[in-house]
Amino acid sequence: MEIVENKETNILKIETVDLCDEDSSMVIIDQTLLPGTIRIVKLKSMEEMWNAIYLLQVRGAPAIGVAAGFAMYLAAKQIAFGLLQGLDQPEAAGWPQMPLEELLTREQASYRYDLKNVHTGTYEAFLQALTRQKDYLNSSRPTAVNLSWALNRMERVACAMKEAPVGEILQALGKEAVAIKEEDTAVCKAIGENGLTLVKPGDGILTHCNAGQLATSKYGTATAPIYLGQERGYNFRVFCDETRPLLQGARLTSFELQSAGVDTTLICDNMSAMVMKNGWVNAVFVGCDRVAANGDAANKIGTSIVALVAKHYNVPFYVCAPTSTIDYNIASGADIPIEQRKDTEVTEMWYEKRMAPEGVKVYNPAFDVTDHSLITGIVTEFGVARAPFTESLAKWRHD
Amino acid sequence: MEIVENKETNILKIETVDLCDEDSSMVIIDQTLLPGTIRIVKLKSMEEMWNAIYLLQVRGAPAIGVAAGFAMYLAAKQIAFGLLQGLDQPEAAGWPQMPLEELLTREQASYRYDLKNVHTGTYEAFLQALTRQKDYLNSSRPTAVNLSWALNRMERVACAMKEAPVGEILQALGKEAVAIKEEDTAVCKAIGENGLTLVKPGDGILTHCNAGQLATSKYGTATAPIYLGQERGYNFRVFCDETRPLLQGARLTSFELQSAGVDTTLICDNMSAMVMKNGWVNAVFVGCDRVAANGDAANKIGTSIVALVAKHYNVPFYVCAPTSTIDYNIASGADIPIEQRKDTEVTEMWYEKRMAPEGVKVYNPAFDVTDHSLITGIVTEFGVARAPFTESLAKWRHD
Repeated sequence: MEIVENKETNILKIETVDLCDEDSSMVIIDQTLLPGTIRIVKLKSMEEMWNAIYLLQVRGAPAIGVAAGFAMYLAAKQIAFGLLQGLDQPEAAGWPQMPLEELLTREQASYRYDLKNVHTGTYEAFLQALTRQKDYLNSSRPTAVNLSWALNRMERVACAMKEAPVGEILQALGKEAVAIKEEDTAVCKAIGENGLTLVKPGDGILTHCNAGQLATSKYGTATAPIYLGQERGYNFRVFCDETRPLLQGARLTSFELQSAGVDTTLICDNMSAMVMKNGWVNAVFVGCDRVAANGDAANKIGTSIVALVAKHYNVPFYVCAPTSTIDYNIASGADIPIEQRKDTEVTEMWYEKRMAPEGVKVYNPAFDVTDHSLITGIVTEFGVARAPFTESLAKWRHD
Repeated sequence: MEIVENKETNILKIETVDLCDEDSSMVIIDQTLLPGTIRIVKLKSMEEMWNAIYLLQVRGAPAIGVAAGFAMYLAAKQIAFGLLQGLDQPEAAGWPQMPLEELLTREQASYRYDLKNVHTGTYEAFLQALTRQKDYLNSSRPTAVNLSWALNRMERVACAMKEAPVGEILQALGKEAVAIKEEDTAVCKAIGENGLTLVKPGDGILTHCNAGQLATSKYGTATAPIYLGQERGYNFRVFCDETRPLLQGARLTSFELQSAGVDTTLICDNMSAMVMKNGWVNAVFVGCDRVAANGDAANKIGTSIVALVAKHYNVPFYVCAPTSTIDYNIASGADIPIEQRKDTEVTEMWYEKRMAPEGVKVYNPAFDVTDHSLITGIVTEFGVARAPFTESLAKWRHD
């Protein structure tokens, strides 16, 4: 993982995810170091990419989708290169091996990067190897549907080109990956326009975690109405939940909103009731990682609590979701897999010293599901869906 | 502030607050250093005591009450000593002055330690000086009623001894301070017995912040049923909210429960909905800092959110409160003053590096008020009060 020289200090002017070096590697902002350090890193091997997603160096459902698209494009190139050169192991190509053992759960470890079985230069072998990379990358984070959505979309492009020369397949994959990114920007902007119709100048807005520009290509999802409102002089007052354990709200959302000149106040997750009781919040906007067909929405842990609090204080609660996050194959949130993460994120991460006794058990789910009954509206690029969501969401189904 | 040598490693075997050196100073466990370091410190001057309460070196409504009783006793001794020796300034007696400016808000600063006006050796001058110390100590934390309750109780003892020699007044104050502590232990045990009737062996219990032994003389309030249950083989499974920003749940509650051998799981504050949704919690027990006549209860920030979540998942929510925390002069929680604390507790405290952008605004209320409609029962030393609380609490009024 190479560090790229950077002199830009305005976080909003740096691409969250991009290709570089004539499409031979991917660059991302390492979000684990924000807000103190703006470091741009270059990812080449699939393990670096898996690692970057697992470690949340790149994070946020839409940004993960964009990274997944680029990763599949780069995987295809590396496979093709390996085939053409007769190389069948990543080591031989000089791709670094990361010490991931301690990060991998047993289940995820079975997907370790492995090109050993690609022995022939056939289309079938190429596709088999690509699918293997897809499964490996897909194991990095289980909850966000954008990851598998983007991976499958890329795979479908390759699957549809059975008779094509490998160069054409690679070209088509590159185009598709860039399209995923460009669509994301357009979708976020449309979400912003639709979200902006739900609030008025001077409103107080609360958001949880980071569904901002850093979670997308541009604008963010939950922050898109805020950024568009800022451009148009709406003067929103925004409250950011810090979002334990990884503090995306403190480190990322308050950072990027402040960079845009938005009136931003940071609170701990357990203070949302106070600010709503004080009458300071007119609307809640959150992002999401997967929406079930009935409108149940998985998002960062604690989102369902914000929704409960908002309901209690009669504050409308909006989920901002590109339609790519709607998983029509899942009837309700009960079927959305919830990622469990390491204890040390709670007991040690960010701290000078361990802040919990040695040996204490920890439960650390990364997401929770907000029941559709607590959601006022789901803001997509096509409009605002309202209850009953099974019907309002169904009209945007296009598979 | 002198460090006392200590070899005891079981936190439950150390007194939270005590007198020492022939009743010339107070010793406390410095709770800001737990769980990593068990340090016992000796407090002599009123500024050290104010400081210890403000900085949460001693914390928890009942423990603050006990510390306040001892502090008033020691203040009386120091005043008497100053009068008898003709000393009218603390500097002259060699009491250390702490650099508190940066910690004091402007309002609190007006109560700085000041004995300059005690010029005569009369009972009136003594009482005036004692009242001044009371007001000063009372400014250290505004929300917990136990602080003012204990200070007033001590003052009343002095007020009732107009014709007595100063030695007798001091003796009576010492007795009263010790009584406050002993009563606290008895009250906590009784709360434990009453709370234990509300749960059954094997139950899952969730608690927020620390209303444990470290917050009291012994047993704690919210933890009293857990400790008594542990002694009787109830095998509770306890979930501790970590409780941002100062992490009392992670640092103190999970530490003391683990020391007692209780099955303890640490979660972030935003995970309570997940554990309740999973069906792991049969009851919530929390402490409290002040209960209004109608049952509204002020407790550590986030408590009202836990109550909302518990209500949503049909989990009974119990507030454990010595009757000394009931403020019958306050009709509802709207009149309970809520302490606001420093931004840096949220943005910097415990972290290796600042985890929020420079200059971001922070809102940091230390407490919130849980509406009585969300409370299943208020567990006191006399029994469990249930709605309507205005009636059920009134029967324990004894002033």
